[in-house]
Amino acid sequence: MEGLKDYIRQNKNRFLIELFELLRIPSISADQKFNKSMIEAANLIKNNLEKVGIDNVELCETKGFPIVYGEKIINPDFPTILIYGHYDVQPPDPLDLWESDPFDPQIRDEKIYARGACDDKGQVFMHIKAAEFMLKNNLLCCNIKFMIEGEEEVGSENLEPFVKNNKEKLKADVILISDTGIIANDTPSITTGLRGLSYVEVEVTGPNRDLHSGLYGGAVANPINILTKMIASLHNDKNEITIPGFYDDVIIISESERKEMAKAPFNLSNYKKELDINDVYGEEGYSTMERNSIRPTLDVNGIWGGYTGEGAKTVIPSKAYAKISMRLVPNQDSEKITDLFLSHFKKIAPDCVTVKVCPHHGGEAYVSPTNDIGYLSASKAMEESFGKKPIPVRTGGSIPIVALFEKELGLKSILMGFGLDSDAIHSPNEHYGVFNFLKGIETIPLFFKHYKEQFDK
Amino acid sequence: MEGLKDYIRQNKNRFLIELFELLRIPSISADQKFNKSMIEAANLIKNNLEKVGIDNVELCETKGFPIVYGEKIINPDFPTILIYGHYDVQPPDPLDLWESDPFDPQIRDEKIYARGACDDKGQVFMHIKAAEFMLKNNLLCCNIKFMIEGEEEVGSENLEPFVKNNKEKLKADVILISDTGIIANDTPSITTGLRGLSYVEVEVTGPNRDLHSGLYGGAVANPINILTKMIASLHNDKNEITIPGFYDDVIIISESERKEMAKAPFNLSNYKKELDINDVYGEEGYSTMERNSIRPTLDVNGIWGGYTGEGAKTVIPSKAYAKISMRLVPNQDSEKITDLFLSHFKKIAPDCVTVKVCPHHGGEAYVSPTNDIGYLSASKAMEESFGKKPIPVRTGGSIPIVALFEKELGLKSILMGFGLDSDAIHSPNEHYGVFNFLKGIETIPLFFKHYKEQFDK
Repeated sequence: MEGLKDYIRQNKNRFLIELFELLRIPSISADQKFNKSMIEAANLIKNNLEKVGIDNVELCETKGFPIVYGEKIINPDFPTILIYGHYDVQPPDPLDLWESDPFDPQIRDEKIYARGACDDKGQVFMHIKAAEFMLKNNLLCCNIKFMIEGEEEVGSENLEPFVKNNKEKLKADVILISDTGIIANDTPSITTGLRGLSYVEVEVTGPNRDLHSGLYGGAVANPINILTKMIASLHNDKNEITIPGFYDDVIIISESERKEMAKAPFNLSNYKKELDINDVYGEEGYSTMERNSIRPTLDVNGIWGGYTGEGAKTVIPSKAYAKISMRLVPNQDSEKITDLFLSHFKKIAPDCVTVKVCPHHGGEAYVSPTNDIGYLSASKAMEESFGKKPIPVRTGGSIPIVALFEKELGLKSILMGFGLDSDAIHSPNEHYGVFNFLKGIETIPLFFKHYKEQFDK
Repeated sequence: MEGLKDYIRQNKNRFLIELFELLRIPSISADQKFNKSMIEAANLIKNNLEKVGIDNVELCETKGFPIVYGEKIINPDFPTILIYGHYDVQPPDPLDLWESDPFDPQIRDEKIYARGACDDKGQVFMHIKAAEFMLKNNLLCCNIKFMIEGEEEVGSENLEPFVKNNKEKLKADVILISDTGIIANDTPSITTGLRGLSYVEVEVTGPNRDLHSGLYGGAVANPINILTKMIASLHNDKNEITIPGFYDDVIIISESERKEMAKAPFNLSNYKKELDINDVYGEEGYSTMERNSIRPTLDVNGIWGGYTGEGAKTVIPSKAYAKISMRLVPNQDSEKITDLFLSHFKKIAPDCVTVKVCPHHGGEAYVSPTNDIGYLSASKAMEESFGKKPIPVRTGGSIPIVALFEKELGLKSILMGFGLDSDAIHSPNEHYGVFNFLKGIETIPLFFKHYKEQFDK
């Protein structure tokens, strides 16, 4: 595309400076201490959209954090591409493991280090800068709409009513999302499947107060011991999940499909080396790549109870807690799974404790076709920018709103992300390659070009 | 005893004011942030001992916190009673469950609320005030020595070398300790057995960094899930501890002894009501009172890992931790049990994680005779002050140094404490009855009187 690479080369430093301004805002949606930063981030997105020439930019109020909307309609007869992304980020803890402040972006080794660098501020910013290029050079060939929300990391609860109430505003031909990754910088890929999610918090209460473990130990149920027993029982010896009915709706994938998937490049010994583990661990009968993509899982994401400070305290706590999430595969319903968990967890609780389960948020799994014009345009765009045809892959993560968009707007989403598995999103030292950031800006206009061509055929 | 009750009545308010000064110092030995407060508390004990007329009071330096020593030798031919206690306290967390500040003592309902009110500052203070009475009224009939340490809540590590190196200084006929309780204010009792303790901290490491549970969930061992599995496996279905060799040295208690113990007053439905539990929980084949006194136990005192903040974070943490303590019974060796735990815990760890076990501290169980002059003197003293003969009981708590004293000094310890199980020691809202505090001050001089009488026989 004319001038694309030159434009990126010439403006690279400015792109980074502008992105850093956004990365400096601790827009942590999970923690209300940061509510002000959330609004600040939304406004900065708004300003950036206006600056590049997007029209009608507004902060759409919700019951939670606002959704930034904007559009550029160049011709009602042209196809419309709706860009989705999010400006909120995961909490940065444990803070002490960060090599630099999570909200003081730095470039080391040609990588941008900051919370949100990859997930998703960096990737959202690629779209804004791609729009800038297309608008400045009169190369925009499709209408474009932006919908950048602030609650992706906490379940996108308020996005559903927004989408339902704004179907006309959000009318488009396809949704383009960059919130996923590629296999490697020399192996581009497009995500064609996502897992769903069911997330709950459990609270186990034993005695009505913390007790001295000498005086009561052995005679009164210790809620931590009980909680570990209950959690341990959620997997059997084959590492299958023991919640009755959990697998009922899982679609069995054919041997031929599994063979096809197994062709994706994967090196187990590198995988183990990169994570510093002696062995992988998962459901019997499935490969590592299958375990984290086509199979549902149950993980404890957090556990706490009793004395966790320095030194020793001989206490039997009154309460113990855990945050537990289940990743779901297509055809599993997240609300049904949450209900199954809830009733099972209460059933396995012994009489000596009481149990509370609080559902956090959920979302459905998603599979996208690989033969429609959205996928083909993404594939051609990446082939052009990377010099290599991308591989379609199903990934283990969840973007629950993708299923929502299909249901409410009747639109497929193209998951054309540019991150890497090693980017440590949700972890300390999250980073995003400068290469990936720029390659995204380069690929997006090509997607627009190919989409228009395919559309006109 | 002449003037005893009157003296207590007349000085009650001053006693409380003086005790409150000590309770205001946050002398938390487990947390080095409070090192200065520890020294402050030691000095205040010193000043109080000097003020009542104890001689040669000094802070004896150790590798940790100082031991306060003092003595009053009235006649080398008289028996010598060595008072042991501690000025350090447990950490007060969880702070939000305290109705008043743990270090701002308050009297509500005739109870002193503060961390350390009962364990052990309040009980140590009874001895200082009893000495004041005896010295002021020329009624001291035995030599008296004080040894008040500052590391009881963290394992008394530096007491052992101190005792070993100061055998002459600590020479006595009996040790008197008030760091235990009675069954009820109308049912006095003397502790004749204590459990030992083995305390460890475990760390389970999975991947080398926190991971996104969507991308890695199901394929990589989650150290929290693994830790819960490992902890759960430490008990079998009968709630017996599964560590090989754990019970090898436990002395089987005869049926007739168990029958004798079962005579102690105990009301299961009150016990459950008081703790707000539907059911008790413990080792099959033993009663509640047996479970927390004559049987060894294993409790998780703290557990943590992953995201424990507000909201949801979909992380597979790199590490998960637990603090685990085992209460031991006579003849179990704490170091041996720690070693058994260590090798078992490492053995049951799957290949996909690495495990570190760090022993915190330990101590041996103890049984005291009920027919020597120390016990008889305590029994007579309590009978006189309470108007009721005390019951000998074995308790589930641990005062590891009691076994140490027997080994190094050849002395038995009389565990004449005045707390109640409901005092919430080690818990939020620790308190100590004003009745119990004053009853202690009344009983201690009677112990001295009876000891001298028995000694002279």
